[in-house]
Amino acid sequence: MNETEPSGLIDHHCHGVIRRDLDRTGFELLLTEAGSVGALGGSALDSQIGFAVRRWCAPLLDLPPHAEAEVYLERRAELGHAEVTARFLQAAGLDALCVDTGFEPEPLLSPQQLGEVAGASSYEIVRLEQVAEQTAPTTTAAGFADAVRDRLAQRAQTAVGFKSIAAYRHGLRLAGERPSDAEVRIAADDWLASANGDARTPLRLTHETLHRFLVWCAVELGLPVQFHVGYGDADVNLDRCDPLLLTDLLRAIEPTGVPVLLLHNYPFHRQAGFLAQVFANVFLDVGLATHNLGRGSRALIAEALELAPFGKFLYSSDAFGLPELYYLGAVLFRRGLAEFLDAGVAADEWTAADAARVARLIGSENAKRVYRLTPAARVTA
Amino acid sequence: MNETEPSGLIDHHCHGVIRRDLDRTGFELLLTEAGSVGALGGSALDSQIGFAVRRWCAPLLDLPPHAEAEVYLERRAELGHAEVTARFLQAAGLDALCVDTGFEPEPLLSPQQLGEVAGASSYEIVRLEQVAEQTAPTTTAAGFADAVRDRLAQRAQTAVGFKSIAAYRHGLRLAGERPSDAEVRIAADDWLASANGDARTPLRLTHETLHRFLVWCAVELGLPVQFHVGYGDADVNLDRCDPLLLTDLLRAIEPTGVPVLLLHNYPFHRQAGFLAQVFANVFLDVGLATHNLGRGSRALIAEALELAPFGKFLYSSDAFGLPELYYLGAVLFRRGLAEFLDAGVAADEWTAADAARVARLIGSENAKRVYRLTPAARVTA
Amino acid sequence: MNETEPSGLIDHHCHGVIRRDLDRTGFELLLTEAGSVGALGGSALDSQIGFAVRRWCAPLLDLPPHAEAEVYLERRAELGHAEVTARFLQAAGLDALCVDTGFEPEPLLSPQQLGEVAGASSYEIVRLEQVAEQTAPTTTAAGFADAVRDRLAQRAQTAVGFKSIAAYRHGLRLAGERPSDAEVRIAADDWLASANGDARTPLRLTHETLHRFLVWCAVELGLPVQFHVGYGDADVNLDRCDPLLLTDLLRAIEPTGVPVLLLHNYPFHRQAGFLAQVFANVFLDVGLATHNLGRGSRALIAEALELAPFGKFLYSSDAFGLPELYYLGAVLFRRGLAEFLDAGVAADEWTAADAARVARLIGSENAKRVYRLTPAARVTA
Repeated sequence: MNETEPSGLIDHHCHGVIRRDLDRTGFELLLTEAGSVGALGGSALDSQIGFAVRRWCAPLLDLPPHAEAEVYLERRAELGHAEVTARFLQAAGLDALCVDTGFEPEPLLSPQQLGEVAGASSYEIVRLEQVAEQTAPTTTAAGFADAVRDRLAQRAQTAVGFKSIAAYRHGLRLAGERPSDAEVRIAADDWLASANGDARTPLRLTHETLHRFLVWCAVELGLPVQFHVGYGDADVNLDRCDPLLLTDLLRAIEPTGVPVLLLHNYPFHRQAGFLAQVFANVFLDVGLATHNLGRGSRALIAEALELAPFGKFLYSSDAFGLPELYYLGAVLFRRGLAEFLDAGVAADEWTAADAARVARLIGSENAKRVYRLTPAARVTA
Repeated sequence: MNETEPSGLIDHHCHGVIRRDLDRTGFELLLTEAGSVGALGGSALDSQIGFAVRRWCAPLLDLPPHAEAEVYLERRAELGHAEVTARFLQAAGLDALCVDTGFEPEPLLSPQQLGEVAGASSYEIVRLEQVAEQTAPTTTAAGFADAVRDRLAQRAQTAVGFKSIAAYRHGLRLAGERPSDAEVRIAADDWLASANGDARTPLRLTHETLHRFLVWCAVELGLPVQFHVGYGDADVNLDRCDPLLLTDLLRAIEPTGVPVLLLHNYPFHRQAGFLAQVFANVFLDVGLATHNLGRGSRALIAEALELAPFGKFLYSSDAFGLPELYYLGAVLFRRGLAEFLDAGVAADEWTAADAARVARLIGSENAKRVYRLTPAARVTA
Repeated sequence: MNETEPSGLIDHHCHGVIRRDLDRTGFELLLTEAGSVGALGGSALDSQIGFAVRRWCAPLLDLPPHAEAEVYLERRAELGHAEVTARFLQAAGLDALCVDTGFEPEPLLSPQQLGEVAGASSYEIVRLEQVAEQTAPTTTAAGFADAVRDRLAQRAQTAVGFKSIAAYRHGLRLAGERPSDAEVRIAADDWLASANGDARTPLRLTHETLHRFLVWCAVELGLPVQFHVGYGDADVNLDRCDPLLLTDLLRAIEPTGVPVLLLHNYPFHRQAGFLAQVFANVFLDVGLATHNLGRGSRALIAEALELAPFGKFLYSSDAFGLPELYYLGAVLFRRGLAEFLDAGVAADEWTAADAARVARLIGSENAKRVYRLTPAARVTA
């Protein structure tokens, strides 16, 4: 393996793998961020990600590269989901995975199971809004702040980071100030009142003050905070997901020294690179976009690295559901990063030794440093 | 011709050609989106589009590639506008044109004439705001909704799609909800009242509710709806033309299955690609930008295809006035798409057969499917 | 030297060089736009700009290309700041510098000294907000407009342009209208009242009306107006720095014919290119970003030139403090522009003669024309 293709990657943000076989519709629905599959726009497999699956994933199922979609899906069904999952996770070449356990619309492999299948350490990332939504039904507006803080402190015992999904709800235009407990009480009162009257509907936090409160709780606990930024599914209003909307909050968090990790970022990855340059505690990745862009991910990685210092860029897949995505993210990231680094060496703009060092930083060392990943923090049974 | 250079393109959004000879100022004014020609910034021909005209268009006027601008303009005048128009439209290699008939500041070739000169089928696209502005003087606020609906239904008999120019007026921040007739009445009342008192000024629709009403009329008629998005002339406030501002409306239209086509999009083409991935009925092109970017259009096409499924991307020139633009758009699009596809084949990331198939989808098949283009829908005398 | 690498560049926007030796922290702080240097994110030298310094600057200090950072800094200290400054400024190959004298947190080389060291003509750019802040303490709200106009008229005697830093304060969402003197009086009253009570705090202008008033004063004096746009340090809220926010103001200024220069622009350089195409008096550069992106500046230059006419694009370094940045900006700009132009020649999309002509326009002729640079306007003792 090329020295500029980092071998033992740390995937600092992913989800679990689904545990069932899939028909073509089921596969296409999990392949991209589209909310449905229909004839009007053609197949989801006729796309950069679809062509990348056929090119890179088919050989792991004993097929020739570029196998037709139908052939691929037949072979996949023949092998069964457990075998397919094992092949892709092992081939991804991961040293560690940090798993967001806050989104589980159906049974998924747990962090521990993911780690076992992948032959990698696994760590937990706790979704802030989920904790708040789980806490709300058993508390009052007056008790909300303390109850959430307690619950988060408890979760921090075994997690290596938190994640905010404010992007999917209020959007990223969050104020900088740490809200007072009085402000949190008022906001919780609003929220709980608006949710009253239908106990069957799950609580859905969308209040700016509460998103911000959760982030500050995480900061006080001293664990890295991930933010969903940019690219997501059809539920996201992408115009509210520009990382620049976080500027005031990032400026307010910076003095604490707590790392903030901007996830995905596409198509605002240059903006994220700017934030990573100017704020000492801001980091970024291009997860989710990497595998969705397929061959196009090379330009994405190069653009993210225009301003971002090499010590501020991390790898993540943001894979969910399909085991292909853990592998494809890793393959495309390795290739894209190597192409970026090798081209600079070829043009004599940096040295091979520097390129290899940068590959190690980005592939795993930045993640180890930011999350302080140690054996003790690993997920165990 | 290379198989990845689609031969019979469908230009799904263009305007008419002017019918007079031009001096240098007249030519430069029609070449780009600039509102004036002046000495301070040099010649409009010293630009990517100017160099592309000299490179690709000069040979069609029997000149060597890269002929100087003055030589080019002299030869153009010598041949006369009719001959020049015939040469460029025939050389564009079009199977069909969909012509927006709603902008005609001076006499232009009609859709039928364009089709005859180009040797292609031609279809009509009806501009929604123009219909509303034509309807307003002969109706009242109370009768506006019905009168517009009637007129649009009538136009839909012979058109293949509608177009909204909300981007040029209110901007694209349109709500999702279909307005009620009562809301339309109030909005029409506002609009007609504000326009009162000067019968000589043409009515100019800029009301958010009315733009939205028009779009929903089009959706109810079941015809594809085009939106001007992004890049346009000096009248546009480009910060209000990001396609992401349409998110709520796109989400509301999606269940109807009516296709929405995002036109131009530059420099928000990645955002448009995102929308095309996540919403089943959203499509995009990079018309207008393609010929304006000249050689730079290669990167544009590649970026638009990062997320957009290959079944969601179409060709348009958005040519207006100069016959060169119908040809140049087609040449640059063919070259840019072929370069994108061939590079993937050369890198063994997809196959030559897949590349040829994608070229056919993007060159014409997507347009045929979306607009249901049939001989019966053609413009006739 | 290649003909497409312009030799005698005009750097139309830069600052002064610091006059002291630097330790590693001091050097890293001046190298990028980061507000601090810390261990969490690694060294600022592990970045595109850091690798570019080692590649391009080391040889000027008699070191091999790619010298390690520590070796570089030791050699730099050994030579001393005066010698280092002389080497880099002379090697930058500048014909002229336009120096913004409005930011001097510590003693810097004056425009005249810069010019002497660089062997180039130097000209002054006057920062509008600084003049207003200097004028305020000695006037009243009622007298403010006249006092500022007088002071600016005086400064215009010896300057070649003005600069607005509204981007750093209110942001670029400025209205188009020239404010009346009554509006200025009210705004000045607000501002001076809010600043009252603490005479030791320097006045900091952030009022939209006053920023706009200053720009219109500059326009009335007929000198080119520079705007900070986009990329800057951690004090900037980049979401308020999109050049598209200036659209109404640019449209209002256009009829005056006074040139407006959009500086930096990253990551909104495509938006700036659009404005340069559609408004006759708008120009742009990619200063500051050019050296910060290192090898990545090639794509930046190509993207800026997608829509911008070649007569509308200028060179600036926006260098401040470190003499390396004057040199690095020039080296990277020359290389990036040459790569852009040479690739077009190699692909036969324009001619070598055209490429050489464009290099001269962008390297110096556009600046000469826009600023009317004449010996008489030069800074003298």
